[in-house]
Amino acid sequence: MKNGMDPLIIFTPSGKRGHFPVGTPILDAARELGVYIESVCGGRGICGRCQVETQFGKFAKHGIESLEENASGWSAKETRYTDKRGPLKDGRRLSCSTTIQGPLVVDIPADTVINQQTIRKAVDTRIITRNPAIQMCYVEVDEPDMHKPLGDLDRLKLMIEKDWGYSDLLVSQHILPQVQQILRDGKWAVTAAIHRDLKTSRPTLIALSPGLKNEAYGIACDIGSTTIAMHLSSLLSGQTLASAGTSNPQIRFGEDVMSRVSYVMMNPDGQASMTKAVRNAVNGLIEQVCTEAGVDPTDILDSVFVGNPIMHHLFLGIDPTELGGAPFALAVSGAVHTWATEIDLHMNEGTRVYIIPCIAGHVGADAAAATLSESPHTEQELTLLVDVGTNAEIVLGREGRTLACSSPTGPAFEGAEISCGQRAAPGAIERVRIDPQTLEPKIRIIGVEQWSDEPGFSEAAAATGITGICGSGIIEVMAEMFLAGIIDEDGVVDRSKAATNTRVFEDGRTFSYRLWETPDGPDIRVTQNDVRAIQMAKAALYAGVKLLMEKQDMPQVSKISLAGAFGTFIDPKYALVLGLVPDCEIENVKAVGNAAGTGARMALLNRDHRREIEETVRKIEKIETALESKFQEHFVNAMAFPNKVDRFPRLEMQVKLPQKRQEPEGAEAGDRPRRRGGRRRGG
Amino acid sequence: MKNGMDPLIIFTPSGKRGHFPVGTPILDAARELGVYIESVCGGRGICGRCQVETQFGKFAKHGIESLEENASGWSAKETRYTDKRGPLKDGRRLSCSTTIQGPLVVDIPADTVINQQTIRKAVDTRIITRNPAIQMCYVEVDEPDMHKPLGDLDRLKLMIEKDWGYSDLLVSQHILPQVQQILRDGKWAVTAAIHRDLKTSRPTLIALSPGLKNEAYGIACDIGSTTIAMHLSSLLSGQTLASAGTSNPQIRFGEDVMSRVSYVMMNPDGQASMTKAVRNAVNGLIEQVCTEAGVDPTDILDSVFVGNPIMHHLFLGIDPTELGGAPFALAVSGAVHTWATEIDLHMNEGTRVYIIPCIAGHVGADAAAATLSESPHTEQELTLLVDVGTNAEIVLGREGRTLACSSPTGPAFEGAEISCGQRAAPGAIERVRIDPQTLEPKIRIIGVEQWSDEPGFSEAAAATGITGICGSGIIEVMAEMFLAGIIDEDGVVDRSKAATNTRVFEDGRTFSYRLWETPDGPDIRVTQNDVRAIQMAKAALYAGVKLLMEKQDMPQVSKISLAGAFGTFIDPKYALVLGLVPDCEIENVKAVGNAAGTGARMALLNRDHRREIEETVRKIEKIETALESKFQEHFVNAMAFPNKVDRFPRLEMQVKLPQKRQEPEGAEAGDRPRRRGGRRRGG
Repeated sequence: MKNGMDPLIIFTPSGKRGHFPVGTPILDAARELGVYIESVCGGRGICGRCQVETQFGKFAKHGIESLEENASGWSAKETRYTDKRGPLKDGRRLSCSTTIQGPLVVDIPADTVINQQTIRKAVDTRIITRNPAIQMCYVEVDEPDMHKPLGDLDRLKLMIEKDWGYSDLLVSQHILPQVQQILRDGKWAVTAAIHRDLKTSRPTLIALSPGLKNEAYGIACDIGSTTIAMHLSSLLSGQTLASAGTSNPQIRFGEDVMSRVSYVMMNPDGQASMTKAVRNAVNGLIEQVCTEAGVDPTDILDSVFVGNPIMHHLFLGIDPTELGGAPFALAVSGAVHTWATEIDLHMNEGTRVYIIPCIAGHVGADAAAATLSESPHTEQELTLLVDVGTNAEIVLGREGRTLACSSPTGPAFEGAEISCGQRAAPGAIERVRIDPQTLEPKIRIIGVEQWSDEPGFSEAAAATGITGICGSGIIEVMAEMFLAGIIDEDGVVDRSKAATNTRVFEDGRTFSYRLWETPDGPDIRVTQNDVRAIQMAKAALYAGVKLLMEKQDMPQVSKISLAGAFGTFIDPKYALVLGLVPDCEIENVKAVGNAAGTGARMALLNRDHRREIEETVRKIEKIETALESKFQEHFVNAMAFPNKVDRFPRLEMQVKLPQKRQEPEGAEAGDRPRRRGGRRRGG
Repeated sequence: MKNGMDPLIIFTPSGKRGHFPVGTPILDAARELGVYIESVCGGRGICGRCQVETQFGKFAKHGIESLEENASGWSAKETRYTDKRGPLKDGRRLSCSTTIQGPLVVDIPADTVINQQTIRKAVDTRIITRNPAIQMCYVEVDEPDMHKPLGDLDRLKLMIEKDWGYSDLLVSQHILPQVQQILRDGKWAVTAAIHRDLKTSRPTLIALSPGLKNEAYGIACDIGSTTIAMHLSSLLSGQTLASAGTSNPQIRFGEDVMSRVSYVMMNPDGQASMTKAVRNAVNGLIEQVCTEAGVDPTDILDSVFVGNPIMHHLFLGIDPTELGGAPFALAVSGAVHTWATEIDLHMNEGTRVYIIPCIAGHVGADAAAATLSESPHTEQELTLLVDVGTNAEIVLGREGRTLACSSPTGPAFEGAEISCGQRAAPGAIERVRIDPQTLEPKIRIIGVEQWSDEPGFSEAAAATGITGICGSGIIEVMAEMFLAGIIDEDGVVDRSKAATNTRVFEDGRTFSYRLWETPDGPDIRVTQNDVRAIQMAKAALYAGVKLLMEKQDMPQVSKISLAGAFGTFIDPKYALVLGLVPDCEIENVKAVGNAAGTGARMALLNRDHRREIEETVRKIEKIETALESKFQEHFVNAMAFPNKVDRFPRLEMQVKLPQKRQEPEGAEAGDRPRRRGGRRRGG
């Protein structure tokens, strides 16, 4: 039927093209070429989702100058649509109702609410192509006929097969008691929501609405040990309509994941209580995002969840005890497909739940989702993804080979185990600068715009007080203390400074740095133990990365993505100064925010991403640091602070280099050159 | 690999054969040829289900005389099995542990408990080949390994894929929280129950047991308006282990289906109450059959349900109101796949429910199941299947064309609308003979062995009294009254008899026959109105059959199956005398009992039967009698009793032919010859 004599149709921005006979609807041509154009009504001209721009343009060899001759004229269906729903944007047509009359360039627009194909991530500009598991299918069903006594549902299925090509559709049980009323309410026109994540099962009818239902929503949720974050997205436009977060109520059972495992081990109903708590919190967030966006929770038709292995297990009602000790056996590592009702979530009765696979016993679905988002596995150059919590999850890869491990950083980076550490909250010190001459600090606290040396700071800070140092503040104060020579590269507080400067003072058997005086409480100080805690944490992180670099046999990483809240707030520059991560061009070190949440949203909006991360997780080489003899060696070597001043000229200008301790070069080095200063521990 | 030089293996009783290399396990050879041998342990020699008999015999061309040389010797696995489980029957081998050493005849035995492949139906000798939706798969799973951190479930799935060939297995949600404990309880050996009814979805892991689980059960249930009947079968042996029945508790909402629909229409929670009632009753039966057979309800892994359309809808929680009036629209007519937990049934959490399709608004899943059992759709000759209740469901078919309809017989055949009618219960008259000379009756009642003229009857009958006439008794008394000349072929009670015999007496404006005197209550009589009610009922039934015969363009049926309780208890001879069914050789008229229950059991034990009945129901031509103008004509013509005395010589000997009423032949006949006596109604 088609041949080179038929008009050439080019779709932009994909550039896909083909020849189609005159009279072919543009929507049909797009489908044949695999160009994704949404359509809920199946080409009846009533949903308005299939809008395209038939563009002016000149094909040299055809000498076309006018569009009007090459697309069919304004159709009755388009008139009916615009009469009812208002005019289309200039140049727009309904591709179902516009036929090919000659060569055309057809643009799939990305900027209308009704047909937005892409969403932009909060923190980067990557586009998520939409291919959700849910398809909304409008059909007009035959009325019952005594001569052909097929059931209501059976006639509906026939029509879905005829109009949308789904044969042998499965049907969620809860539809059965509703189908009669919905068909009659819709006067035999209904919109069927088909779940077609083929990996799960055959396409399934999961929801049914009377008449044309021109909307469908999904949620993506990252269940962190501390915070649960949720996004509500339109599955039809891809837009994120609302986001919300809440504290994980499991905190009352235990601050970190290991204390929660202990709680389960010591309390017979510990797992059930925590499972219930997290599901309740998730249900609360569902209500919250729905209220914010004005969406009915029963219109949420798909959902994706991620979390670290223990959060993942507790959410699914699985006892996490096995994850508390070697061999850290996951009950399930692969992707989980289940139903919202099976895990007591309040959405539509037919809503499915997809849970991204876990990588290993310490590297969970959240790390897998971050991998999906940051895609080290598809990069040409070696890319490092780090997500720091109580454990650091580390993924290092490039196309063809990806490795992952978890490293026991402990909670120091989150402000725990630090004498004046605290969670990130108003009043917490998050930014620090220390004058290397006077050792006087200036700070910024969460909730106040000004630096402490700017007018208005005291007044603004009075509201919250200055209560402690949060994770990013700890990184900064450590780096600034190092750059100001208060601590040396082995992390020892220079007691000689105490003689000339009251900021450094004797504090029990060691010396501390007084960062801030608080009028109605103890001063905020940084102790020798605090420095040690951060050294241990950063050494663990670095040793994990180093291990993977050795496995990759690559001396250098090209790109570093710092994920999670910690990654978002620390200054990459200070991460490099302290040696948290290996050397890298500073412009290639990026905070990528809640990459796990972004990955979850990607899997929500495009089922191809589900297959991608399942396949990737299968291929990732999982390294268990506890089994690697080199890990301890790397750890010890990474305790010191590297001399990075030459790499940060701007910093160099304001700092006096710390006195290098005199030692015979190489005296303690082994066969391999010492890359990161001395490895004496405890100074 | 294989060629004609390899030994020839013949499997009996199927006769399937092929050449296999020396050393091939017999089980493998059977699988390759499609010979079904059960195996739970996957060839490890521990389940004992794969027993065969390697037979002595002589292949002429091979000149074999000794078996010993042609099958491998007794194996270590067999020794281990018999040490643990006791000896095998003489001549038996485990086919997984016995290899081919030369030509062999291998018999798949049908008579052991552990490997019984067939069940025999209560009322006929048809064999149900077993191919259940559930396969039990024993696997030994790798222990967790920190180097390869796959989850417990994921390693289990890998092993199922390796040993049993199921890839991309779906997993029921409820398994997730159990998998860790079960694997550890079984010391990493478990038996997985795989549901593999492919029409439903991909193969799914629905239950998991530690160690070797050498059993799996299923239930087949027929939900009648009056009675619910259930069979518990072993899915591995096919044996029926227990059967039970109970009254449908919906009876308190309405005696027949239409009064239950009315109840739903008048009571807002009517449907919910009846749904709950029937599900509770089904759960009670599950407990009952399990207790009887000593089976744990959680070991029931599959289930099949049938019922008439209104029972079907109420069971599924669907409002049946639409079925109460034209166009009698079913909410769903196709097969329904759901989960026991979704409809509140107490079996295993992973148990699926399969519901056989409905044929039409008045012809339900019970009729479809009876069709599966009696298979008119596969017969060479025209076969009639009739199931009589408040409606008669009629299926008439032969290979290539099957028709079905429902005919409104009303409840007269069940004893309702008959002055002295009652349900079949102890004390009800079920057999009647009338002496044509004296008009004296003899009777038999339910619960008493003797006829009323035999010694001991009075004493035995005293226990219950003689309370009324049940359905089969009504048929007999009508036929006997006709044969004794008490009623003529138009159904008029012969008032002239009253002059000479007190059995016939004036009873209001018409005459009645006194069937039995009861000492402490009114006599049991048959009135003119009773005769009319039966005439109407049998005319409706006959007219439905006649309509389908005309559609088939066949003047004669070759075989008649009378299904249901009514069909079981009536004497086919009397059915022919009264003209309930068309002429047929009496030896080809058979009561087939609860054919619907048998069909349900067939669908339970063999998933191919599910596909068969789905396909058959799709193809059946559904006739709505209310839309057929001919139906009324057939109905009127069928009111009279046919003169069948020439067909029943044994009867003829004891009867005096009733006087034929004089009328001018053909005076009232239309174009078509009158086939069945006059069509005057009401005499």
